[in-house]
Amino acid sequence: MIAEEIARKAKKADEILDMYLPKEEGISKNVMRAMNYSIHVGGKRLRPILMMETYGMFSEDIDEGILYPFVAAIEMIHTYSLCHDDLPAMDDDDMRRGMPSTHAKFGEAMGILAGDALLNYAFETAVRAYDSVDPYSADKDASLKKALRIAKALGILSNKAGIHGMIAGQVADIESEAKQISMDTIEFIHENKTAAMIESSMMIGATLAGAADEEVSVVERVGSDIGLAFQIMDDILDVTGTSEDLGKPVGSDEKNNKNTYVSFKGLERSREAVNTVSQRAIEALSRLPGSDNASGTFLRGLIEDLTKRNR
Amino acid sequence: MIAEEIARKAKKADEILDMYLPKEEGISKNVMRAMNYSIHVGGKRLRPILMMETYGMFSEDIDEGILYPFVAAIEMIHTYSLCHDDLPAMDDDDMRRGMPSTHAKFGEAMGILAGDALLNYAFETAVRAYDSVDPYSADKDASLKKALRIAKALGILSNKAGIHGMIAGQVADIESEAKQISMDTIEFIHENKTAAMIESSMMIGATLAGAADEEVSVVERVGSDIGLAFQIMDDILDVTGTSEDLGKPVGSDEKNNKNTYVSFKGLERSREAVNTVSQRAIEALSRLPGSDNASGTFLRGLIEDLTKRNR
Repeated sequence: MIAEEIARKAKKADEILDMYLPKEEGISKNVMRAMNYSIHVGGKRLRPILMMETYGMFSEDIDEGILYPFVAAIEMIHTYSLCHDDLPAMDDDDMRRGMPSTHAKFGEAMGILAGDALLNYAFETAVRAYDSVDPYSADKDASLKKALRIAKALGILSNKAGIHGMIAGQVADIESEAKQISMDTIEFIHENKTAAMIESSMMIGATLAGAADEEVSVVERVGSDIGLAFQIMDDILDVTGTSEDLGKPVGSDEKNNKNTYVSFKGLERSREAVNTVSQRAIEALSRLPGSDNASGTFLRGLIEDLTKRNR
Repeated sequence: MIAEEIARKAKKADEILDMYLPKEEGISKNVMRAMNYSIHVGGKRLRPILMMETYGMFSEDIDEGILYPFVAAIEMIHTYSLCHDDLPAMDDDDMRRGMPSTHAKFGEAMGILAGDALLNYAFETAVRAYDSVDPYSADKDASLKKALRIAKALGILSNKAGIHGMIAGQVADIESEAKQISMDTIEFIHENKTAAMIESSMMIGATLAGAADEEVSVVERVGSDIGLAFQIMDDILDVTGTSEDLGKPVGSDEKNNKNTYVSFKGLERSREAVNTVSQRAIEALSRLPGSDNASGTFLRGLIEDLTKRNR
């Protein structure tokens, strides 16, 4: 059953996160508490899972020392973005996954600081991948290659989360509030606010496993499609979902006069788009090496499963 | 004249920043505008100068490709911290260096996003130091050493800006508002909120120039003393300075019932502390190699000059 497999891998992601999350100690322990709370409120751990399994497609021999810091880092960045999105000056959400959002629980200043701390700590954690590079190795070339793969992964992590990725989408989203916007702008927001971090997860997995540049480019397009399908599903669920399943109020897009994929295309054509885009992702994935191994098979099942989610 | 030398080096820091700051373009150009505004509002560029000159103490042969990305990154991180500090939920300051603060000019949401963007972009920029590592070099060992020096610098950058550095100080500061706090807490805040990033600047400069670990530790203590002296001066200037010189209202600490070094020790003993701590920094610096070269001589002059500043 794919659902059980997903749950098992999400649990693995949680264990990895727990390896890297900070101890709550010292004069400033409240910020660590707010960071850990934000992470533990939960989530599907989709990005860590995508990273681990894309890595698994390109290498079945997992180098935990370089992979796991990035697995933790990607979820920290995702969580910081939710933390800041929920702030009163942004989307002003008090609830997240059925629990008080970070600023609602710890106050607004701590909501800002916990987000800052998670973003910074994500890089602090990812850089720990270098601990596994042996400077005294007899095979200098192998160590150098590993060091440069980590560098490339850090480049992807920072680029996709930044002003040419996730933050660009967030800015466009905030500036579109209560405005009529075009389908182009909606696609820009989806591509950047959601898809960029999914691309990042998969590209980092591939890069750390030693995939060639052309392969990483294919993976990027697959991630882009998964992200687009995921976000259209979010728009659909805001109309058809229940607040119990989603852990947050439904109908917020309509209430906020927000143009979405669904408000442009209607429910039926939006559902069609989810399927078309997901199939395209699966086909592209199938042409990559490793698409038939355990990770590749799982990934294709996961993409399929995401089209059927109700939360 | 030391003042002219400082001005010249600050101008060099500005030029380096301009090499890396984003173009204001695309759908999300407003966040780039807010980022660039925050940087261009000015500042002493103390951290970039300290980084460049500490590098210069350990190597007179500047490798711009690895140094300059970090020079830009450290000022971006410093600027993000000011951007977020000024937010209504934090210190709620509308003015910074005689100009509207970022949120006052661009709105609160953009104040948050510009800060996030600067923090993220700092890492995106610093990672570009790897562009100067040649993967095909005949001397693999030299390339590997360079890659690992950059890794160490990234570790320092992220660690000193994070929950065991600057953010810890910020959290302690926010939580101390309108409370009686101890001298220990004030020292914790100074060490982390201010000194950590000064230590970081100098340690990164030394590390990139190839300094030994023991030397980097000495540099860390020097940075700690410079940071402490700098922050005590800030407390002093909040009492004795003019709002024209400072570009912000004076007397804000007293108005906010804030315990400071000065409220504990009084003006005279605070001035003594600035001198004692600065002399200690100069002495420690003098025992390092390179302390007599152009950079070392400049640094000693700079530390002396900081004890006399009026803004």
